Parts: sequence; C-alpha cells; structure tokens
Amino acid sequence: MSAQADQLSATFSALADPTRRAILARLAKGQASVTELAQPFDMTMPAISKHLKVLERAGLVERGREAQYRPCTLNGRPLKDADEWIERYRRFWEQSLDRLDAYLRDLQGAAERRKYEVQKDKGEKRHGRNK
Amino acid sequence: MSAQADQLSATFSALADPTRRAILARLAKGQASVTELAQPFDMTMPAISKHLKVLERAGLVERGREAQYRPCTLNGRPLKDADEWIERYRRFWEQSLDRLDAYLRDLQGAAERRKYEVQKDKGEKRHGRNK
Repeated sequence: MSAQADQLSATFSALADPTRRAILARLAKGQASVTELAQPFDMTMPAISKHLKVLERAGLVERGREAQYRPCTLNGRPLKDADEWIERYRRFWEQSLDRLDAYLRDLQGAAERRKYEVQKDKGEKRHGRNK
Repeated sequence: MSAQADQLSATFSALADPTRRAILARLAKGQASVTELAQPFDMTMPAISKHLKVLERAGLVERGREAQYRPCTLNGRPLKDADEWIERYRRFWEQSLDRLDAYLRDLQGAAERRKYEVQKDKGEKRHGRNK
C-alpha cells in the first residue's frame, strides 16, 4: 500500500463522521480554539479532542504553536486528492441521474396518457357515446 | 443526525480503504462476479465478501438477482453528495496550493539571485576587480 493510498484512506476516514465534518465546516469560517469548537456540539472536551486528533492525523486540521491558546486551522490540501479520486467516477452518478431522469419522464408520460384517457372517457360519457 | 448525514458517513467510510477503492475501480470497467473481483487481490473470498458488504450498505455496489451468478455493479449515485461536500472546500486547497506556489517562486527567485551574484563575483574576479 503506497503512502498516498494511506493518506487517502485517512482523509476519507476522517470525513466519515458528522461531528468531524461539522468541525471542518466551522473552521472554514476561520480558526477556533478547542473550547470554541466544543460549544455547539454538547460534547465533552475529551470527545472533541479525540475528533480533532483524527482530523489532525489526516492533515485536515493544524494546531497553532502557542502554549496556551492553540487555535485550530483548516487545511484543505488533503481534500484535493479525495476530490480527484471521486471525480473519476463522475460519469457514474451523471449516468444514474440520466437514468432516473428518463424514468421520471416515462412516469410523467404515462400519467399524462392516463389523464388524457380519463378525460376522453368522460367526454364520451357526456356525449352519451358510451354503452 | 439526518439520514443524509448518515449516508454521507457511510459513503466516506466505504471509501476509506484501498481494497474497497480498488474494487470500485475494477467495477468502473464493467460488472464482475465476486470470484473475478477476488482474483487480483490475493485475499480470501470471505475477506472480499466483507468489503463488498460495506460497499453494498453504502449503496456503491449493487448485486444481481440471479441465484448462482450475482454480478456486482458499480452505483456512482452516493458519490455525488460526497463530491458536493468536498467541493465546498475547494478554495482551501487552491489557496494552500497558491501559498506553495508563492513559496516555490520565492525559492526560485532566491536561487536566481544567488546564481547572478556568483556569476557577478566570478566576472569581477576574472577582471581583477576583486580585492
């Protein structure tokens, strides 16, 4: 397993948690201390610290060097490779959306034909052409 | 936690393994049986089956319905949300690459200045202008 493959696994693994994704979303607005990060989550500091360690190991978060206040900063660089990996599969979700689109068009077509038949049927009844 | 957040976690978690990413890369070329998928990996069938189950639960792989031969097919749809999530952070890796670029330009500039100074120094020595 290459170092790059490992990095990619670490990135995806770090993203596989809603709290960690929320921490990154918060840091996208600017750097924050661990206390500031913990506030909206109703989680203990050790729990938040654990999530931060996962993000740090994946290189997605960097900590400042000041002894007391060590602000967390988002580092988006590892996301580049993750983005490139996923982008290779773009045609597979575009294709499947095309198929869904075709299916919905079929459904709509069928609904319209049904509506037309019902109206036609009513019209025939009104004009007494029905047996 | 919303169902969508859960789906995103399942997707990223499924991608956080080089074997599972390799299985998806193989399926991108066309459907395959579990035996065909196991071949290049030098892994036992139960080990491959376990990876496939993770991919199936994340909705990234679908299995055929035929009793004996149940081919695996890639389903790229869950990757769309993962791609959209990552894309929101694009400026963070582009920024960091810009910073790296600026740093490399600085290094190159310093190297060129040094080269110029060395050449100037040699020239001065050649013309006996050096003390």
